Amino acid sequence: MDFRKTDEQEMLLQSVAELVTRDFPDSYFKNCDAQHKYPIEFMRALCEAGFGLMGIPEEYGGTPVDNLTLIMFCEEIARLTGTSYLTSYLIYVDDVLSFGTEEQKRITMDLVAKGDPSLCLGISEPQAGSDNNAMTSTATRRNGKVYINGQKTFITNASFSPYMLCMTRDLDNPKPAKGVSMWFLPLNKKGVKIEPLDKIGWNMRPSCEVYLDDVELEESDLVGKENEGFFQLMKNFEIERLVMCAGSLGCAQAAFNDAINYANQRVQFGQKIGSFQMIQQKLVDMQIKLHNMRNLLYRCAWEKDNGISIQITSALAKRYCAQAGCEVVDDAMQILGSVGYTNDHRVSRMWRDLRVGRIGGGTDEIMVYIAARSMLKALNN
Amino acid sequence: MDFRKTDEQEMLLQSVAELVTRDFPDSYFKNCDAQHKYPIEFMRALCEAGFGLMGIPEEYGGTPVDNLTLIMFCEEIARLTGTSYLTSYLIYVDDVLSFGTEEQKRITMDLVAKGDPSLCLGISEPQAGSDNNAMTSTATRRNGKVYINGQKTFITNASFSPYMLCMTRDLDNPKPAKGVSMWFLPLNKKGVKIEPLDKIGWNMRPSCEVYLDDVELEESDLVGKENEGFFQLMKNFEIERLVMCAGSLGCAQAAFNDAINYANQRVQFGQKIGSFQMIQQKLVDMQIKLHNMRNLLYRCAWEKDNGISIQITSALAKRYCAQAGCEVVDDAMQILGSVGYTNDHRVSRMWRDLRVGRIGGGTDEIMVYIAARSMLKALNN
Amino acid sequence: MDFRKTDEQEMLLQSVAELVTRDFPDSYFKNCDAQHKYPIEFMRALCEAGFGLMGIPEEYGGTPVDNLTLIMFCEEIARLTGTSYLTSYLIYVDDVLSFGTEEQKRITMDLVAKGDPSLCLGISEPQAGSDNNAMTSTATRRNGKVYINGQKTFITNASFSPYMLCMTRDLDNPKPAKGVSMWFLPLNKKGVKIEPLDKIGWNMRPSCEVYLDDVELEESDLVGKENEGFFQLMKNFEIERLVMCAGSLGCAQAAFNDAINYANQRVQFGQKIGSFQMIQQKLVDMQIKLHNMRNLLYRCAWEKDNGISIQITSALAKRYCAQAGCEVVDDAMQILGSVGYTNDHRVSRMWRDLRVGRIGGGTDEIMVYIAARSMLKALNN
Amino acid sequence: MDFRKTDEQEMLLQSVAELVTRDFPDSYFKNCDAQHKYPIEFMRALCEAGFGLMGIPEEYGGTPVDNLTLIMFCEEIARLTGTSYLTSYLIYVDDVLSFGTEEQKRITMDLVAKGDPSLCLGISEPQAGSDNNAMTSTATRRNGKVYINGQKTFITNASFSPYMLCMTRDLDNPKPAKGVSMWFLPLNKKGVKIEPLDKIGWNMRPSCEVYLDDVELEESDLVGKENEGFFQLMKNFEIERLVMCAGSLGCAQAAFNDAINYANQRVQFGQKIGSFQMIQQKLVDMQIKLHNMRNLLYRCAWEKDNGISIQITSALAKRYCAQAGCEVVDDAMQILGSVGYTNDHRVSRMWRDLRVGRIGGGTDEIMVYIAARSMLKALNN
Repeated sequence: MDFRKTDEQEMLLQSVAELVTRDFPDSYFKNCDAQHKYPIEFMRALCEAGFGLMGIPEEYGGTPVDNLTLIMFCEEIARLTGTSYLTSYLIYVDDVLSFGTEEQKRITMDLVAKGDPSLCLGISEPQAGSDNNAMTSTATRRNGKVYINGQKTFITNASFSPYMLCMTRDLDNPKPAKGVSMWFLPLNKKGVKIEPLDKIGWNMRPSCEVYLDDVELEESDLVGKENEGFFQLMKNFEIERLVMCAGSLGCAQAAFNDAINYANQRVQFGQKIGSFQMIQQKLVDMQIKLHNMRNLLYRCAWEKDNGISIQITSALAKRYCAQAGCEVVDDAMQILGSVGYTNDHRVSRMWRDLRVGRIGGGTDEIMVYIAARSMLKALNN
Repeated sequence: MDFRKTDEQEMLLQSVAELVTRDFPDSYFKNCDAQHKYPIEFMRALCEAGFGLMGIPEEYGGTPVDNLTLIMFCEEIARLTGTSYLTSYLIYVDDVLSFGTEEQKRITMDLVAKGDPSLCLGISEPQAGSDNNAMTSTATRRNGKVYINGQKTFITNASFSPYMLCMTRDLDNPKPAKGVSMWFLPLNKKGVKIEPLDKIGWNMRPSCEVYLDDVELEESDLVGKENEGFFQLMKNFEIERLVMCAGSLGCAQAAFNDAINYANQRVQFGQKIGSFQMIQQKLVDMQIKLHNMRNLLYRCAWEKDNGISIQITSALAKRYCAQAGCEVVDDAMQILGSVGYTNDHRVSRMWRDLRVGRIGGGTDEIMVYIAARSMLKALNN
Repeated sequence: MDFRKTDEQEMLLQSVAELVTRDFPDSYFKNCDAQHKYPIEFMRALCEAGFGLMGIPEEYGGTPVDNLTLIMFCEEIARLTGTSYLTSYLIYVDDVLSFGTEEQKRITMDLVAKGDPSLCLGISEPQAGSDNNAMTSTATRRNGKVYINGQKTFITNASFSPYMLCMTRDLDNPKPAKGVSMWFLPLNKKGVKIEPLDKIGWNMRPSCEVYLDDVELEESDLVGKENEGFFQLMKNFEIERLVMCAGSLGCAQAAFNDAINYANQRVQFGQKIGSFQMIQQKLVDMQIKLHNMRNLLYRCAWEKDNGISIQITSALAKRYCAQAGCEVVDDAMQILGSVGYTNDHRVSRMWRDLRVGRIGGGTDEIMVYIAARSMLKALNN
Repeated sequence: MDFRKTDEQEMLLQSVAELVTRDFPDSYFKNCDAQHKYPIEFMRALCEAGFGLMGIPEEYGGTPVDNLTLIMFCEEIARLTGTSYLTSYLIYVDDVLSFGTEEQKRITMDLVAKGDPSLCLGISEPQAGSDNNAMTSTATRRNGKVYINGQKTFITNASFSPYMLCMTRDLDNPKPAKGVSMWFLPLNKKGVKIEPLDKIGWNMRPSCEVYLDDVELEESDLVGKENEGFFQLMKNFEIERLVMCAGSLGCAQAAFNDAINYANQRVQFGQKIGSFQMIQQKLVDMQIKLHNMRNLLYRCAWEKDNGISIQITSALAKRYCAQAGCEVVDDAMQILGSVGYTNDHRVSRMWRDLRVGRIGGGTDEIMVYIAARSMLKALNN
């Protein structure tokens, strides 16, 4: 075994750290959060510095890296910016590059290469949250065109993305998973109405209701094969979990750093509060959780890179990291006291933001469902 | 033993429920929260309906009730409004009524009787959070006047209260607790600067920095006796804890009600989600916590009414209720899923609001400090 | 509300405390535990002192008390003896007094009145643990006799009880609950084989496998009505839960007392260990749990006494008390360190004993099942 | 990074597994536990098969392996035998090999090579548990001899080990850590009295009181240098923590395997209990903990092998693994129900055994003390 980062990994992370430290102080992200604004300047700067296409194949101008390196990169971005999941778009891009037409790829990469919003992913519906099979959006043929109808909910970045990868279902197909199709849907089309939800956190990225009323597409807007949309999606479901874990971990690490520094300075009752055992116990248990999160996550990414199935382990990692991330940030807030309860301190932002990680991308409970069934099934083989 | 509410208690709570249900839908409180606005219409309506002076002696026009009834009332207000700690002003009023001059009482009651903001309480300072003894605000005599200097922090309602009960300290007194004085300080005085903090929750009531730069008072603005301010405060410290518990409990109950109703309607995977064991286990453990909170709290209030010391039990109740309240609301959010993460649903507001209850009025950790020392000391007597 | 014990309750508890303190030091119970011996001397002394028939109607020579008093008594016995559930036989006796023949009552009371073992309760079977409906023991008529066949498991006290209340099932009845009958089965009958299990705790009371091979009974050995055995049992299921809670609570209280006394004496690093915050936090959280257990339990018993359904609340109390009891004793062991890991200290015995309370009388998980379904059903009425 | 075991590691673990599976069924260890008997046959078989001197330098006939491999070996032994910490003697042997005289080494290795008990380690005293500095055993010179006086407590294996590495203190030395000496003390000497404690678990290895009344030694019985005993000990303190973690992990893994297999077979309510969500949630969280334990532990051992300080990480690993191990085994018991509460099933043995891991080798709380101080100190450098 070898737990060392490669020199390339170290250098990559250091370069990113230099960029953020130099040009993007916390006030920048605090401001984006307060104004519910996508950090477009930061995303563009990432691209200019060559970090925008991490994990994307060279033929598309990207920087191909293994999953482990990608995950470390996502974690570091989260730690440096105090903002989680900024880099999750890389996954949807991969869906297009893997299954899309040349035209769809070109459109997507033109946007992505500049750091601009490109795609959002349209899966969830009001009655189909964790239960994707209950999806009711449809694609109907009429006069040589395709018409999309339905309602998507909690769609990240929909309000400023030019395109949505929109999932529809053939309701006549008795096996729901075998009747799903994926469409490359321009969001400026007639019949599209988008309404951002008013969330309590994760405000740099809007989550939107998207109403689709007879939106007219061409056959050529299909991504991949008809009725195979679900399997196309699944390719990246597991990586998406890891990207979410990396966001939780990076932010939790930032919160821990803030908390231990504060404990080392703040004096009450004539002592640094870090000298009190109740604070020490919190710090130690936070540190243990950070190690656990990182270990689970790196190992899982390494397994994926080495052809080992992560169907179970990615669900375990998602369940643990989402919860532990919230716990660490909550402890950090407790150590910071009233300071941590204000928007002046980024810990409060991360406290609000990380909570979504226990709901989105499959809830804590869905992870049990996924992992347990496979664990038990494995016994019988 | 008898665990029944009296008929009077039942009637009181029912009357309050009718008032709120009829005139103050959740949209009202949601709006106050969004605009960071004190729910003055609600507070005035409470007064008009005769509920504004609960616990205040009859001679001041109040409705004298025992602590148990007061606590039930505070809990019910929190449950109905989804907003905690609205009624905690009653405590500061009691400080004035117990120790103030006739003039101070008259001014205070004139405001309180209408439901208008009256007093805020100025204790905490940037370097004196849980450690009250580290206070450094001073009152200095000059030319027959008293000049107040210092900085107070996280002062609830300061930005719209006409008066502050301001604590100062005689820094020469070797025993900090014996050198504290309480002043009736008009906040429109020259030298007062007030800046609301930008919090993540509890937004119907501002928490403010208050800068006091040579604020000129009269000797007659002293409340009670010089150097006895700390002991005057202590009279109500324990009740303040119970009022905070009642706020946490009421909101947690509201969140539980929302969650179990949602679980009983929301369908996923072809079943009501309430039929899933992982949801059932959450609901059951939430219900247990609600019982525990209520039992601890009512018993503690009853003890106070019956002359039994609640020094230890009020600290235990505060520690438990503040944490359990947050846990219950967090579980409710998890059951509600993405719906609960938006401001459209009050559970998100309570999730942000209740968190302050683990910090204010003595942190979770300070409660351990208070209770454990007394528990151990009791062994040696 | 009134949280005071009555004078009668205080006196009763005090009398019991005097008896145990005077005549039954911990060494007695330690010895019983080590030798896996029923504390028959103690049980007889309880009877002689008039405490043996608590809760049994006067007409049978008992001391009729309400459920609340009975529960306080059970708690106090557990606290004094460091042994849980000694008094649960009172429940089975009540089954006989409620439904049995005059002869069955006479036989039972003759034994009980002396403090001698009388009845054990035969419900659980190897394939029917929490799932009573899966019972397969049968009663078959042949030549005017009744023949019992089956296997019962984990039957408390079977190895020295003269009688078992044995449940059988009419396997042809499509509704399992409506085909259960209760028999007064002498355990010295031919065809009965009893094998005590080798448990890790709760060793003063054996738990046994009972094999029933064509055990011949008379029709007159039926208790109550044929096929109504399940409903007869249910009468006392809820009270049984409360009696188990009382055992957990009493022992947890004993462990807490031991731990706080130890923390107040044991010196390490030049200080009493009770002065360390990590120990203080444990003690405070133990104390909170004890209050929660007691509050839940007393309220529940009071509800039963006042005709309020405890179907839900008794399940909530059982779930909470069984777990919290284990947690408190575990913390006590941690505070006592290696001392608490030896049989020299009763905390280790209670640590082993209380664990059974999370399994027997319905597991932690079954309590969720019971409570959640009823909570949800109540919403729809 | 690379998370793969080497082929050598895989082969080693497989060979051990074959040995145990073939020759040492659980009934063997169950019997040892019941009789409080050291599994001498197993220890000898390990030696015969060439696994007895794992980690010991080649010059002494050992099999030198890195710490990571040693830890994997210890984990596997625990998993296979359902018994923790059997191999911890390797650490004390290392103390002798590192600091002892040729004679001391020869004596020790002669015993160890056969699989026979050799050394026990005498540190703890009744008033010096976690606080080693409070030790009061002394070595006094008289007539050219050395006389040892004092009392040692909870000394593992003392009752059948021929030698004890006995720590004494120069009480005049103002810095306690600088006045400790280590002696090679034959336990058959006059003045030695040994009394095994009656523990609730970990019964294959006695823990003993050792009374030392003027035990006469030679100067040549000193191990290493006078007054440097504490630093000699410290060399292996960190590895000892890892060996304990490995024991907890191996047993927890065994318990998990038992539980998931049982859940996959046991039917209640017409379904395998593994299909119930409450059981699934337990299994998933157990699995996560096992991953966390293993990750922390392997990484820590790897760090040690690579010259990275594990002062902090070994304390974090010890705190986490000891607790998580107990939690996993406790959940396994809950899944097994009453079966798991009997000595018929090894889960009950592991449940009793692992509890000592939270006390011995530094309590959970001492690990906080060690880690937190170093974490905070690191900030100031």
